[in-house]
Amino acid sequence: MPRYLTTQEDLEEIVDKYDTILFDCDGVIWEGDHLIPHVKEVLAGLRKKGKRFFFVTNNATKSRESNKAKFDKLGIECHVDDIFSSAYASATYLKNVLNFPADKKVYVIGEKGIEDELDSVEIRHSGGTDPADNVFIDLMDFSSITPDPEVGAVLCGLDMHLNYKKIAKGCRYLRENEGCHFVATNLDSTFPTHGSVCPGKSGGGATIAPLITTLGRQPLVIGKPEAAMLESILKTSVLTPATSAWQPLPRSTDLESVFFCLRSYDLDKSKMLMVGDRLNTDILFGVNGGISTMLVLTGINTRAEAEAEDAIAKPTYIVESLGDFSSVV
Amino acid sequence: MPRYLTTQEDLEEIVDKYDTILFDCDGVIWEGDHLIPHVKEVLAGLRKKGKRFFFVTNNATKSRESNKAKFDKLGIECHVDDIFSSAYASATYLKNVLNFPADKKVYVIGEKGIEDELDSVEIRHSGGTDPADNVFIDLMDFSSITPDPEVGAVLCGLDMHLNYKKIAKGCRYLRENEGCHFVATNLDSTFPTHGSVCPGKSGGGATIAPLITTLGRQPLVIGKPEAAMLESILKTSVLTPATSAWQPLPRSTDLESVFFCLRSYDLDKSKMLMVGDRLNTDILFGVNGGISTMLVLTGINTRAEAEAEDAIAKPTYIVESLGDFSSVV
Repeated sequence: MPRYLTTQEDLEEIVDKYDTILFDCDGVIWEGDHLIPHVKEVLAGLRKKGKRFFFVTNNATKSRESNKAKFDKLGIECHVDDIFSSAYASATYLKNVLNFPADKKVYVIGEKGIEDELDSVEIRHSGGTDPADNVFIDLMDFSSITPDPEVGAVLCGLDMHLNYKKIAKGCRYLRENEGCHFVATNLDSTFPTHGSVCPGKSGGGATIAPLITTLGRQPLVIGKPEAAMLESILKTSVLTPATSAWQPLPRSTDLESVFFCLRSYDLDKSKMLMVGDRLNTDILFGVNGGISTMLVLTGINTRAEAEAEDAIAKPTYIVESLGDFSSVV
Repeated sequence: MPRYLTTQEDLEEIVDKYDTILFDCDGVIWEGDHLIPHVKEVLAGLRKKGKRFFFVTNNATKSRESNKAKFDKLGIECHVDDIFSSAYASATYLKNVLNFPADKKVYVIGEKGIEDELDSVEIRHSGGTDPADNVFIDLMDFSSITPDPEVGAVLCGLDMHLNYKKIAKGCRYLRENEGCHFVATNLDSTFPTHGSVCPGKSGGGATIAPLITTLGRQPLVIGKPEAAMLESILKTSVLTPATSAWQPLPRSTDLESVFFCLRSYDLDKSKMLMVGDRLNTDILFGVNGGISTMLVLTGINTRAEAEAEDAIAKPTYIVESLGDFSSVV
């Protein structure tokens, strides 16, 4: 049963026990454009105590630079390399894990954040925000759905400009181009906004569903709760404590060597805590990674859902809000 | 094992044995805008022999009137009431089976064919081809996804103008409006065109996938291979042999009474044959309905697929093309 944290002593114990904290952002630090109360002071206080932060987000619509801008705007200290986004993780996974060939390109069904991160690792791409693909085609007019043998992967993330042309092109490349990779930044299906729930905010889930249905094929999923997210980031970089900047790692093919590198940089998994508002992404991500987890109740899931017999993942701790720590930092 | 028809005697036997023939259209009669060779003569010859026809199509993008226009253009005799489309079946299902209230409306994610058929049974609707909903919204701008308590059903069919706004509205109504019906004209996932395969031609499959993923809820599916298609049509109408026109049936709640009506109009299931190119829609539809089935190889599925041990449905017969019957009609 998850431990429900309420007293000063409970909260102090957590602050003492963990030195590296992985945060989900939406529903934990902010909701939309609004900071969750007291979270700003809590983060500043934890930094002051020397805690190391990682902001782990499935939101693939923005680059890490753009994500950082949101922290800046909200007055929260953040460095680009503190941010793990599913867009960046997808780009580095293609580059470093799948050895994506230089003569191929990626067809993007998604927003600018994915294009920016592909640019950052020098992978060519098409689709995405290209105006030619952000149009409605006429009923039963398939003349623009032409082959492109250069496409070696179709990468999907939340696309608020999703349309039939993009879906049809993605399907065509995946059917016709031998070895074409089918990759999703993440499969989140919903996200909270203004008291309602809309399809797939961080959310490749709604975007990629038509392709999965049409192709009868499952994508490789990079974002939380998949191990690929961690694998991708860790294969590419390790933390340099002095600067909070990541340096390239020697290529390795198994997670063990990655954890060896982590250990060599004093990242002790027993002192790592994943904080999130969703059982099926954040908490499961922490559980899959073998670290402690804390559910906050300022987002998607409730205490009852976390304590249910058949919960998809059980957090180590539950706390009403990250803001509750303001009294102990 | 399906019987593979090749000889003159085989084909003559089929023509003699069945007096009512249900045809799928795409991949059987035409492919895109092109008639399949010799099919025109075959249909004319079968009509001359007094066979009764039903054109059963999951294509919900066109009204029955528009479907008829295609037959007219291709020079094939067809009456509006010969046509069973999943759009018409969905409208009549809402009206006659679900008793859709007059003070509610249907939110349409689909093309004009669905709107036309809702009009034909006097059900109000929104969405669909309304220009206000056929736009891309800005990234993370949910201001136009407002509640509408009048929406009592969300009806989805293939929508080549599918966009995030429609998906988000559909999700909102289904989440917030108590008792809101979630209906799909059909779940076809692909269709043949110009030698390639594009998402969901007849095909609600690709259109509705984002809603299913976001909501974690399955729709009521009307089109082939579901029994609802037949139930809906038969509950609404019975064939009047003299005019090929359908008349309203007394309301009934079970399929048995429908079949009683069918029998009373001399529709003998042992003399009915469903002809189609897909195992998972056409052939399964016939099998579910308890009638004989014939797979043609001018569309989606192959002979090997139909003969496979684990075929989703086994046709009674397989023939290369409906056009093969030209020598016996």
